[in-house]
Amino acid sequence: MAVVEISIIPIGTPSAGVSNYVAGCLKQLESEEEIKYELTPMGTIIEGELEKIFKVVRKMHEYPFNKGIERVVTNIRIDDRRDKDLTMNSKVTSVKNKI
Amino acid sequence: MAVVEISIIPIGTPSAGVSNYVAGCLKQLESEEEIKYELTPMGTIIEGELEKIFKVVRKMHEYPFNKGIERVVTNIRIDDRRDKDLTMNSKVTSVKNKI
Amino acid sequence: MAVVEISIIPIGTPSAGVSNYVAGCLKQLESEEEIKYELTPMGTIIEGELEKIFKVVRKMHEYPFNKGIERVVTNIRIDDRRDKDLTMNSKVTSVKNKI
Amino acid sequence: MAVVEISIIPIGTPSAGVSNYVAGCLKQLESEEEIKYELTPMGTIIEGELEKIFKVVRKMHEYPFNKGIERVVTNIRIDDRRDKDLTMNSKVTSVKNKI
Repeated sequence: MAVVEISIIPIGTPSAGVSNYVAGCLKQLESEEEIKYELTPMGTIIEGELEKIFKVVRKMHEYPFNKGIERVVTNIRIDDRRDKDLTMNSKVTSVKNKI
Repeated sequence: MAVVEISIIPIGTPSAGVSNYVAGCLKQLESEEEIKYELTPMGTIIEGELEKIFKVVRKMHEYPFNKGIERVVTNIRIDDRRDKDLTMNSKVTSVKNKI
Repeated sequence: MAVVEISIIPIGTPSAGVSNYVAGCLKQLESEEEIKYELTPMGTIIEGELEKIFKVVRKMHEYPFNKGIERVVTNIRIDDRRDKDLTMNSKVTSVKNKI
Repeated sequence: MAVVEISIIPIGTPSAGVSNYVAGCLKQLESEEEIKYELTPMGTIIEGELEKIFKVVRKMHEYPFNKGIERVVTNIRIDDRRDKDLTMNSKVTSVKNKI
């Protein structure tokens, strides 16, 4: 299991507000059954099997193009650990326990 | 006001677990009075005046070196909007209202 | 066609030097016929069809695990433009022409 | 010395082309005497003392606002190594020697 953060930026939008597009990208996650996600002020964090995450990230990245946008810059950051199960919860708890 | 995400990765650590270092970086934020912050599974999100954020990010980046680490990769993502006040709350609310 | 930057960081390596791993990740690209790539001081930039890039990025991300590493943080930044062909060359030329 | 990559994205531009802004950001680097830089298809890579780099990154991030843009997303990735001198050249050479 991996924890992945994704941030999608549509370029050439009519205004500086892009939450419409972000909301549409997020909706692509709703129908996914085997992944968990969390919206943060800077992106969306997804937890699940890397293969499934890649597929849904692909769909999220495509969304703004379907809405007429001609350029999209997408940032994907993968944290993948194999010696133990990495979850969104375990990552935050592990840090908080040490403060 | 800007919203900034920071992720600090120490390189060459004895194990794959790095939450000790992340916790130490976070502590640099505690004494700051004019910035708000939030720990996420993929980093720390900070809200405040850009000048002040830069200063504290500089301190956070330095922390692992003080603990004997010889290499640090730090990722900083700035979302800076000047036509209206950007806050961590307003960003998330704005997206949620559109879902 | 998209231009994608990838940076792969192995966590918990014996030393602060990780070029061995980076070199191994790069080798995954050599056998690919339909993508172009370029090594920079901060990562690898790949040009090609997004679907093909995702596949090879997946292989690159896997490489350090095959070498015994237990945690890998991978950063992928996609610049995808559909109104005209985006290439590594055209992007740099376009900026240089304006300086 | 650190090697830093910066990518600046203006939001809400009239078109999907943003090379004008990127060129303007780059010009902020020309007058700097103690830093080296290199334009890549995905951003600008800077080599120098971290304190000086932070100052110039601050100026680059400000440029699009001076041109009427109301929102800028800036990505900064710092690779900072203290056990030996990190340069743009040494990083690329070190990987190439291992291929």
